[in-house]
Amino acid sequence: MPNLAIHRLPMAHPGDLSALAALIDRGEVRAAEIRAVIGKTEGNGGLNDFTRGYFTQSLMLLLSRATGEDLAALAGRIPCVLSGGTEGALSPHYLVFAVDRAAAGPRGLALGTAFSAPTPAADIGREAQIELVARAVRDAMADAGITRAEDVVLVQVKAPCAQAPGPEARSGDPRLLMALSRAAAAFGVGRALGDIPDGTEDDLLRDLLKYSNRASISSGIEVTANEVLVFGHADGWAPGLTAGVAPMADLLDLDGVVAAFHAAGLPAAPAVPVAQRARVLGVLAKGEPEKSGAIRGARHTMLGDTDLDAQRHLRGALGAIVASVAGQGQVFVSGGAEHQGPPGGGLVCVFARAV
Amino acid sequence: MPNLAIHRLPMAHPGDLSALAALIDRGEVRAAEIRAVIGKTEGNGGLNDFTRGYFTQSLMLLLSRATGEDLAALAGRIPCVLSGGTEGALSPHYLVFAVDRAAAGPRGLALGTAFSAPTPAADIGREAQIELVARAVRDAMADAGITRAEDVVLVQVKAPCAQAPGPEARSGDPRLLMALSRAAAAFGVGRALGDIPDGTEDDLLRDLLKYSNRASISSGIEVTANEVLVFGHADGWAPGLTAGVAPMADLLDLDGVVAAFHAAGLPAAPAVPVAQRARVLGVLAKGEPEKSGAIRGARHTMLGDTDLDAQRHLRGALGAIVASVAGQGQVFVSGGAEHQGPPGGGLVCVFARAV
Amino acid sequence: MPNLAIHRLPMAHPGDLSALAALIDRGEVRAAEIRAVIGKTEGNGGLNDFTRGYFTQSLMLLLSRATGEDLAALAGRIPCVLSGGTEGALSPHYLVFAVDRAAAGPRGLALGTAFSAPTPAADIGREAQIELVARAVRDAMADAGITRAEDVVLVQVKAPCAQAPGPEARSGDPRLLMALSRAAAAFGVGRALGDIPDGTEDDLLRDLLKYSNRASISSGIEVTANEVLVFGHADGWAPGLTAGVAPMADLLDLDGVVAAFHAAGLPAAPAVPVAQRARVLGVLAKGEPEKSGAIRGARHTMLGDTDLDAQRHLRGALGAIVASVAGQGQVFVSGGAEHQGPPGGGLVCVFARAV
Amino acid sequence: MPNLAIHRLPMAHPGDLSALAALIDRGEVRAAEIRAVIGKTEGNGGLNDFTRGYFTQSLMLLLSRATGEDLAALAGRIPCVLSGGTEGALSPHYLVFAVDRAAAGPRGLALGTAFSAPTPAADIGREAQIELVARAVRDAMADAGITRAEDVVLVQVKAPCAQAPGPEARSGDPRLLMALSRAAAAFGVGRALGDIPDGTEDDLLRDLLKYSNRASISSGIEVTANEVLVFGHADGWAPGLTAGVAPMADLLDLDGVVAAFHAAGLPAAPAVPVAQRARVLGVLAKGEPEKSGAIRGARHTMLGDTDLDAQRHLRGALGAIVASVAGQGQVFVSGGAEHQGPPGGGLVCVFARAV
Repeated sequence: MPNLAIHRLPMAHPGDLSALAALIDRGEVRAAEIRAVIGKTEGNGGLNDFTRGYFTQSLMLLLSRATGEDLAALAGRIPCVLSGGTEGALSPHYLVFAVDRAAAGPRGLALGTAFSAPTPAADIGREAQIELVARAVRDAMADAGITRAEDVVLVQVKAPCAQAPGPEARSGDPRLLMALSRAAAAFGVGRALGDIPDGTEDDLLRDLLKYSNRASISSGIEVTANEVLVFGHADGWAPGLTAGVAPMADLLDLDGVVAAFHAAGLPAAPAVPVAQRARVLGVLAKGEPEKSGAIRGARHTMLGDTDLDAQRHLRGALGAIVASVAGQGQVFVSGGAEHQGPPGGGLVCVFARAV
Repeated sequence: MPNLAIHRLPMAHPGDLSALAALIDRGEVRAAEIRAVIGKTEGNGGLNDFTRGYFTQSLMLLLSRATGEDLAALAGRIPCVLSGGTEGALSPHYLVFAVDRAAAGPRGLALGTAFSAPTPAADIGREAQIELVARAVRDAMADAGITRAEDVVLVQVKAPCAQAPGPEARSGDPRLLMALSRAAAAFGVGRALGDIPDGTEDDLLRDLLKYSNRASISSGIEVTANEVLVFGHADGWAPGLTAGVAPMADLLDLDGVVAAFHAAGLPAAPAVPVAQRARVLGVLAKGEPEKSGAIRGARHTMLGDTDLDAQRHLRGALGAIVASVAGQGQVFVSGGAEHQGPPGGGLVCVFARAV
Repeated sequence: MPNLAIHRLPMAHPGDLSALAALIDRGEVRAAEIRAVIGKTEGNGGLNDFTRGYFTQSLMLLLSRATGEDLAALAGRIPCVLSGGTEGALSPHYLVFAVDRAAAGPRGLALGTAFSAPTPAADIGREAQIELVARAVRDAMADAGITRAEDVVLVQVKAPCAQAPGPEARSGDPRLLMALSRAAAAFGVGRALGDIPDGTEDDLLRDLLKYSNRASISSGIEVTANEVLVFGHADGWAPGLTAGVAPMADLLDLDGVVAAFHAAGLPAAPAVPVAQRARVLGVLAKGEPEKSGAIRGARHTMLGDTDLDAQRHLRGALGAIVASVAGQGQVFVSGGAEHQGPPGGGLVCVFARAV
Repeated sequence: MPNLAIHRLPMAHPGDLSALAALIDRGEVRAAEIRAVIGKTEGNGGLNDFTRGYFTQSLMLLLSRATGEDLAALAGRIPCVLSGGTEGALSPHYLVFAVDRAAAGPRGLALGTAFSAPTPAADIGREAQIELVARAVRDAMADAGITRAEDVVLVQVKAPCAQAPGPEARSGDPRLLMALSRAAAAFGVGRALGDIPDGTEDDLLRDLLKYSNRASISSGIEVTANEVLVFGHADGWAPGLTAGVAPMADLLDLDGVVAAFHAAGLPAAPAVPVAQRARVLGVLAKGEPEKSGAIRGARHTMLGDTDLDAQRHLRGALGAIVASVAGQGQVFVSGGAEHQGPPGGGLVCVFARAV
């Protein structure tokens, strides 16, 4: 039995933690063992998406009741990475990562977490943030006992942004600053893992060929520090769980999606067979509207739509492709994949139960 | 060489017919041979989507200049089936169907067209419309020389609706009347083909188990009659083109999508290989947000989103799945699949060049 | 000094109660005296607007810390009426109503509150709800010490609805059920006040000439009972505050808006002069897109817009007109004015400081 | 009888010119006398609003039939200024300006038009465009016989933009380039009229205190040149029509709106009385979301809404205020008021029949 447990839970609305509450009540999850939460809420995914803050507040309220810790202390030690937007086939859900430190094993899937120092708006999208994230990634690796960069499967970061950036910020446009924050965090991951050895703040959003296939970044106003989760393989963890990641060359790269499931040991052909679906514990995907305005030569309309935000377009499309392979819609799909996977493409990460 | 030609053409905006104009100018398409157009414009796909009317007017202007016929006469004989909405990976494009009556063959893919009598708002979603469509389908089969219902691959209908239905209409809600129009047209197709032998107007939008896997219906205020295209196999047509259709059991039925490509003779595994992509001439798909609010047990959010119309959600998701198999985004995807394929699912139809 | 105090406070986001927290910290508001909150959050105002629930949870958390009561008890005695949607000139804000029972006066503006029994989905939009609301209005009048219906200025109700109504509900369409809930609550108010003496559940959404100019109803999934606030004049309350209400004949009835300010003793001509603006304590307005599709003979496009919900259209327009008279954008504007003011119109209520 | 006639006509959809066709058929308008059209269509007003192009094509088709001129020649001599977006109380309509050169008078309201040379994307938002517009304004003044800048009431410009600006453009972001185009055109107007004597391209979108209260600019991809209409007073025109313009200090400046009606000789108090409404021939307004994020100190949410474009917010609010004074919703309201009226505010222009 693994000492890392992953629970994929539905929510009826962004304030609904009843599924986790039930697991805690029944003793299936010990609240004190919860190390991180990654979730997908049904907001618009943009600056004015408050479903993320609502979920986080509701989660911390539940955990506070269960553990007796106060809300601020919990928020300061448990990364809660939320992405808004469940367009199309996607389904609101969250992944709860619990670690039983007592139960060890020879080697298995490991999770480590870390928080950077608070990152003021002035540091967002700058060298300061890149370095803060790189250090937090190394801290999280140490927390997990992961000793080599090549043993890391995925780093998930929740990076801060600012609703009304002041004159000291790199950009006064909050949407651009949000993108710079994701970019800097990706560079921080790439620096720690060696995937982007020489990225500087001038390269952010410019040199898109500098990217990591193992960095997945969300950004939101509801966090003030960079919150980092590292998944990888390490000694001392129990076997039983697998994880795989694969890049997508572009939005339509169905082969890339299938490859990620294969990397996690799942026989997708092309969809995961019904009998194997329960083995899928969690799926994360990042993608980006192709900036040239065309995919494989055919014009797309994601970037110039006054009614529908480009990221909502993107998540609906990418989410459906990934969900059609996974066999269900509880897939974490997040836009804003700057420097996370190939430009115009992205990446997919799958957590599964081993056979 | 087939006497039915299918041209898939890009548009830069809904009034851009320059790709067709160039083909006509170069003599590659003879304007007088154009029998029908099916296109996907970048509107919202709803009642207030005027990109369909704009494209149609622009098309008829071009054809009027090329043939000397006046606009009304052209609009009365050439079905122009447009669906608005190119969410996500979809790309604005149109299919031009041209028939060279002089060049015959032993047996091949055939196209026939017909217009019903004008359908007033009072008849929409009622027995009168069902029967008008059934007759028009039979007329279009006769036009194509298709003698048996089992030889029909797909019937595409553009059915009328009303922006401000009066008291004589079956529903005063224009969106509901639009759905009733699609439903009645599907029943008309099903009646003509024997797929829905006993459907009555009371069953419309109620008995969803009455459906045809070969009916694809759009509805819009820009037409006043039911415009019908029938595709199938008939004697006297040249070989060289294939067509295949397959139902989708639900929105995530990736196997169903792959099956449609296989039915058209394309080796999708799961995506159509790069070397075969040019053989794909046209792809049509219909789908529908699952009314129960869940897909395979996971809650979706398409039906209760105040910001984003359910059909925009649906097209973005379905379109991406189909495009990921087709290998490109010029796919005609249309929501509102009432009685067109299994409930909560839909259908995919592929036109291809034979090997 | 009045014993009813009204505080109009800004919020930076739907979870931001810092303005109220500061007042409590400084002793300017005693948490135990807070009787009700009415607020406008920056959501979309529809079924999937979770900013209301987020604000409510945040408010109750603050009050729980300040009073020691638990969250459920607070939610069960303090009506929190939120309306989502701050389109155009509107500004997110909330009104806090605090009552100092010790400080009495001869006669003045009074506030009473009451909660009905929980209203299951099966009772929404039916006689049961009408009667529950009527009783709660009488209870709230008694709570305020208002003895005569003509002394009531305004009744504000937050009525329940259901995200996924079951077969027992009057409508399976959650949006229609939401409208029925508002309608039934308006009838309940009208029954208690004598404004709609003979309304039955069959008249709901049908006989729009049955309305009250003193009923303002919101509906949301975040409440399970009908929460009622009654404002009026009663003995035992201190003078110093005024309130006025006036109907709007249609959306463009600028004279109606001005009349409401005059009724509250404010010299709007047409705008409230700068020197008098601080006297405006709170402004509430209800309105409705004209169902005929035209206002004063000119077609409007609120009802057929696939991209933008009709209520968002309405709030942006109505809010701007009212705010242009009030002189600022902290105006509570809520759509869905069925039976609240004249059909196609609505009503405006103004709370002010007396001279 | 004036020799300038203004007809305000409704449209049922963006391709509906039936109201004008009827006037031409009945001889009430001579097609050859039509000099310009200004209209408001029900699109989203953004880059992907194709209702403007659809209306223009439909108008030119009608005029081509009526005059025998070809479409390109008509489009090259008749400015057609369309703004998309009829949010809230606004109503789709168009103003047709016809001039009977034969019928002269001593002095009256005059109209002149001019087209600049085509403006390539590389010149948009640069000195070249400013100067082209300034010259076109002088040409249009000469066309009208207006000899002094102070006799000009309003200059309306339709300025070009680019859907996919190349590397030579001042900005690669089409939305920013659209704003630069409006700004440069406003500077051109200001240069010609002396309102912005020293504006340079570096001041565009930066020095917002450089503005003209008589410049109203729209921008769209459907034009390639700057199309200019100048309204003012000149000898040789018949009396009978009046026009007035007034700036709005901010979005809530109701007094400014009323002042514009007074300037046109209409007794608004605050609304135009019913008996005088027929005298209102046309109303134009420009406005802009306050960039600081607050109006009179209260936070607004127009600029950070992922679901609803800032200009749609703005038009709904401004349009309702202006329409509530005008007494009806056929008001041309256009966002993007950079350098057109005070920053954060805008302007209103009213055309009326003299008493």
